[in-house]
Amino acid sequence: MSGPPVLTRARSLVEPALRHTVRQLDPVNRSIAEYHLGWTESDGTPRESSGGKAVRPALALLAAEACGAPAEQAVPAGVAVELVHNFSLIHDDVMDGDTERRHRPTVWAVWGVPSAILTGDALLNLAQDQLALHPQAVRALGSAVRELVRGQTEDLAFERRSWVELDECKAMAAGKTGALLAASGRLGALLAGGSVPMVDALGTYGAHVGMAFQWVDDVLGIWGDPAVTGKPVLSDLRARKKSLPVTSVLSGGGAAAQEVGRWLAGDDPEPDLLRIAGILEDAGARDRALAEAAHEVDLANRALEGHDLSVTALDELAELTRFLTHREA
Amino acid sequence: MSGPPVLTRARSLVEPALRHTVRQLDPVNRSIAEYHLGWTESDGTPRESSGGKAVRPALALLAAEACGAPAEQAVPAGVAVELVHNFSLIHDDVMDGDTERRHRPTVWAVWGVPSAILTGDALLNLAQDQLALHPQAVRALGSAVRELVRGQTEDLAFERRSWVELDECKAMAAGKTGALLAASGRLGALLAGGSVPMVDALGTYGAHVGMAFQWVDDVLGIWGDPAVTGKPVLSDLRARKKSLPVTSVLSGGGAAAQEVGRWLAGDDPEPDLLRIAGILEDAGARDRALAEAAHEVDLANRALEGHDLSVTALDELAELTRFLTHREA
Repeated sequence: MSGPPVLTRARSLVEPALRHTVRQLDPVNRSIAEYHLGWTESDGTPRESSGGKAVRPALALLAAEACGAPAEQAVPAGVAVELVHNFSLIHDDVMDGDTERRHRPTVWAVWGVPSAILTGDALLNLAQDQLALHPQAVRALGSAVRELVRGQTEDLAFERRSWVELDECKAMAAGKTGALLAASGRLGALLAGGSVPMVDALGTYGAHVGMAFQWVDDVLGIWGDPAVTGKPVLSDLRARKKSLPVTSVLSGGGAAAQEVGRWLAGDDPEPDLLRIAGILEDAGARDRALAEAAHEVDLANRALEGHDLSVTALDELAELTRFLTHREA
Repeated sequence: MSGPPVLTRARSLVEPALRHTVRQLDPVNRSIAEYHLGWTESDGTPRESSGGKAVRPALALLAAEACGAPAEQAVPAGVAVELVHNFSLIHDDVMDGDTERRHRPTVWAVWGVPSAILTGDALLNLAQDQLALHPQAVRALGSAVRELVRGQTEDLAFERRSWVELDECKAMAAGKTGALLAASGRLGALLAGGSVPMVDALGTYGAHVGMAFQWVDDVLGIWGDPAVTGKPVLSDLRARKKSLPVTSVLSGGGAAAQEVGRWLAGDDPEPDLLRIAGILEDAGARDRALAEAAHEVDLANRALEGHDLSVTALDELAELTRFLTHREA
């Protein structure tokens, strides 16, 4: 797996604690969680794969280091955000009816919906347990989970609509993607004993990085190379996803908005998706998305200015953010 | 709604805090939660009904009073256990495919499975948030939720089996029913600042009351009067539920076990359920269940002996337990 060194470091620090935590579950939900986390096959055979990329744990550890604490101090935060991330993936796959994730069958596709609901519940519960000794961290994670739920609720509602404004889409993405990255920065800083302004700054950093990531991800969902993204070409258009680039064109008005709106409202089973991608690109959606991503990274960096943070950690944060926002778009 | 005065007291103390807590949710999940809690119709119109019985909050408040603290001190515990109870009801209704609860359509039946998953997630999250200031309480609630998940996981597995031993059924019920009542006693005592032995005693009390409740509930599911239980006659037999009375006969061996086992293993679509009820009764299942319930109440009471607990609170606890275990069986 590629990526900056901090991802490897985060995995090696957080994974043992994560494995230990998951062992607290009953045997059935434990083995389902271990499959989902990429550690075993569905029959329980161990796998080589090191599981997820550990982006959120890496952000939590770097936030702690930025505040001058050893990364080890933020391990419970790293475990908590990784558990919340995976709880939401397992439940979202049920809601979205997705049968594959990372080229493997999803939990509900293997064990059924009830098992996926229960294993997700168990991981959410374990996440909040991690932080029991840190009241502010419990509250911060709780509020991030509510944002996550709000974001997913709005995303599902968008599916039943044919017109979504850019501001609505941004608010949805701030919940669905931004909130947990914000919490990762915030929790890492909290567990490091960072000052209130530092904690807020690292939370804000994560929120903006989350938005930047989502703009780039949405560009890849339309114009990305399937060999790189692992998704079929034009996949988000095929799903009529009201993504950030699409809603930016809708909210921009004019002929392009009308044409995109007609496509979203129509029931043409086989619309010419290359033509839609062309309309979006001609309307400046791709350029705007990449400019918005750059702007969010800029806001993220500005949030850290004027705080007494470790320079080494800031360099690694910048590298992590570059990795998240400069995928082959 | 009938029941001892402590239930009314618990509702009047806990419901305002519960309403305040649910208001922290986004508008969509908030309105779904308010419907489920019995406060509104599905279109948002307020309802007269005071919602659930508040058995778990009542136990938490009495546990606090038993430790010499005012009931008010345990309100966050009451809110937390009521939220966990309702999270589990919303998710269980999805898993069990139940379309009605308390004579009203269930959440998934009105809003669909994704909404039910999300609203349940949101309530679980709010529950753990309530206790953020009390690390031991966060841990105790977390462990109860894992027990709840384990119990429901086992209960679902029982559906696919034709033979379940009594000990397995007891372990399932200890998770699905006992754990949250145990947590109610434990959390109330913890928030009251009770000593470790007192906290343990009130937790043990709740666990045994939960088991007693389940034995009685399972008797009602087979032999209860539909006018009283609100369930169709013989409903648990119709569902081939491996309940405590049924598994007690299976584990007892002999001709009755064989006959009950044949019924559970067979695929006769219209078995003579009155005959099965008769076999169970002749094998002593009903008498044994009521004796086990009495025994659990006895164990509950013994757990409280030798502790310096408030006599008034103990009287009210006994009254609450009587209410829970002497329904018209």
